Amino acid sequence: MKNFPIAKSRRIRSTPYTSRIEEQGVTAYTIYNHMLLPAAFGSIEDSYHHLKEHVQVWDVAAERQVEISGKDSAKLVQLMTCRDLSKSKIGRCYYCPIIDDLGNLVNDPVVLKLDENKWWISIADSDVIFFAKGLASGNKFDVKIIEPIVDIIAIQGPKSFSLMEKVFGKKITELKFFGFDYFDFEGIKHLIARSGWSKQGGFEVYVQNTPSGQKLYDHLFKIGKEFNVKPGCPNLIERIESALLSYGNDFDNGDNPFECGFDQYVSLDSQISFLGKEKLKKIKSEGIKRKLIGIQIECKEINLSNSLEIKDKKNKIIGELRSACYSPHFGKVIGIAMMSKPFWNVSQFVKIKVNNSNHDGKVCDLPFL
Amino acid sequence: MKNFPIAKSRRIRSTPYTSRIEEQGVTAYTIYNHMLLPAAFGSIEDSYHHLKEHVQVWDVAAERQVEISGKDSAKLVQLMTCRDLSKSKIGRCYYCPIIDDLGNLVNDPVVLKLDENKWWISIADSDVIFFAKGLASGNKFDVKIIEPIVDIIAIQGPKSFSLMEKVFGKKITELKFFGFDYFDFEGIKHLIARSGWSKQGGFEVYVQNTPSGQKLYDHLFKIGKEFNVKPGCPNLIERIESALLSYGNDFDNGDNPFECGFDQYVSLDSQISFLGKEKLKKIKSEGIKRKLIGIQIECKEINLSNSLEIKDKKNKIIGELRSACYSPHFGKVIGIAMMSKPFWNVSQFVKIKVNNSNHDGKVCDLPFL
Repeated sequence: MKNFPIAKSRRIRSTPYTSRIEEQGVTAYTIYNHMLLPAAFGSIEDSYHHLKEHVQVWDVAAERQVEISGKDSAKLVQLMTCRDLSKSKIGRCYYCPIIDDLGNLVNDPVVLKLDENKWWISIADSDVIFFAKGLASGNKFDVKIIEPIVDIIAIQGPKSFSLMEKVFGKKITELKFFGFDYFDFEGIKHLIARSGWSKQGGFEVYVQNTPSGQKLYDHLFKIGKEFNVKPGCPNLIERIESALLSYGNDFDNGDNPFECGFDQYVSLDSQISFLGKEKLKKIKSEGIKRKLIGIQIECKEINLSNSLEIKDKKNKIIGELRSACYSPHFGKVIGIAMMSKPFWNVSQFVKIKVNNSNHDGKVCDLPFL
Repeated sequence: MKNFPIAKSRRIRSTPYTSRIEEQGVTAYTIYNHMLLPAAFGSIEDSYHHLKEHVQVWDVAAERQVEISGKDSAKLVQLMTCRDLSKSKIGRCYYCPIIDDLGNLVNDPVVLKLDENKWWISIADSDVIFFAKGLASGNKFDVKIIEPIVDIIAIQGPKSFSLMEKVFGKKITELKFFGFDYFDFEGIKHLIARSGWSKQGGFEVYVQNTPSGQKLYDHLFKIGKEFNVKPGCPNLIERIESALLSYGNDFDNGDNPFECGFDQYVSLDSQISFLGKEKLKKIKSEGIKRKLIGIQIECKEINLSNSLEIKDKKNKIIGELRSACYSPHFGKVIGIAMMSKPFWNVSQFVKIKVNNSNHDGKVCDLPFL
């Protein structure tokens, strides 16, 4: 696939770490929430192996926050998500599909409960802030909605625990998965969560004090040499193998949470009130007609810039490949596809045209690993 | 400025014309409404001269539509914009700032009235669909809100009239500015407006029938040779000289319409009801404290990827440069800046650090030409 440069402008926002990652050799960007998100530092495959063995520091400032505070903040946050937050705790992160009136997905953020009346919605790539503002206005909720200055640094990989312990002390290794707390770096408190866009373990530092965050970024590389620290970014191969779904890639506002396998986050039996609840009850009782599953394809290379049709032996279209990559682990291409009923069963034969030639493949479970 | 390739994926949507413009030599992309928007075909300066003399065909499919239909559609569209649409007519386009509860800008689309109960909001780069969905849900409006399949081709430049007449006949030249009508191409009706992202004159074809639109795209190049037709895209130099403001670049959700000079589109004295009306009345009566103006800078080159501070002789920050380019017409850099009161008067001296050295400049009126 030919490379095309990105035309930068203020609308495609830089982050506080952009000049650093450009010095460190970022080789491709994507745009996420109107902001630069690094997509590669050289070979994605090399970076994949490194991430699974060592530790990487990522500029994921593009993971923007929608801050909702005020008397009705809990009501508004709950209205937006099908996940029951009535027993949610301060200091915890919650993966929360956001749903519209039709029962379709708007985003799949992690929600941080900062206080009884203060929440951060750590968003995927859509303007959740305007959905929240519209709902707040229409429902006359007493809330304040802003995009605060928060520029996340992620520390990911198996050695992230040792690296972070070296900076913040023993206490940070005791943080539970999806817990967050406040940790001191040179006199500045940072909110740090045990979370991130990989399944290799790690942390996300929600940087509000920009100069301190930039110092921390540099510090992590200075003291991380013994752990073979490198700059990195969400890795296409690792995220597909782990089935970390991506809004806009694997699913979008045309899909509902049952089609995406989010069943455990859909609290239909609770007393809570959220958008699309009745629609989702109907969808559940009728049963879905397609769903996201894994695909293995007998080929060695793929560059997806759009969906690809998936066909059966008789050339009938039975699904749509939405993300894919070459997996070094499997020695072939793997991907995430929206498959029609009844073609979503494991081992179902599929045929896909990649690079102008047909390749065989089969349906498999998610995650791959 | 170093070039960085864009990492393509389904989330960064291609358009029906992407394969064509890549064959035709597109050299840079930006991302707009989660979609590829061409940003250059070789030299931007060459393209600028060509656009002002001849005719260009642009893939502006990234200019997405939010379709609002149903019984309460007019009420919802009016609620979102400060411009009085009570006397709006079917077949007309309206430039309509979209405003939130705080009186700040959400987008600055062109609104097309298709029918008494059917509207297209032709949006700049933010997810207006979710703002509309939130408002519709909160206000319990009886509306249907979708992003229809519409992929615009723009035909821009002084010779666009001759080229379009050759395809669609005399009638299309009688279309008034910001009027639209339906025109036949090989048996398929296309909605065509006299509009576009340049001040050089032209049309936008709202393509709903994709195969017919692709044929039309090819046809325009085949029969346009006598008009020296070329592929192109919204041109940075031309749009700054003409002061065609850009959401995300020149203004954003932190700015209000008076700061952006949109006074003529703010109908405070009407009986209509829209978001932020009381806030805007207050802002107007108190007077704004900063506004968008033009800047000329005594230098020959600039590549803006973020705001730049604007200082006075005493190094006091008095404004923020948001867009800029080298203008062949003026032989220097020109730009659009948000300037603090009272430093926004024409001929005010300014100092800006560009490419690591200080340059003098002065405030001037918008548009430049």
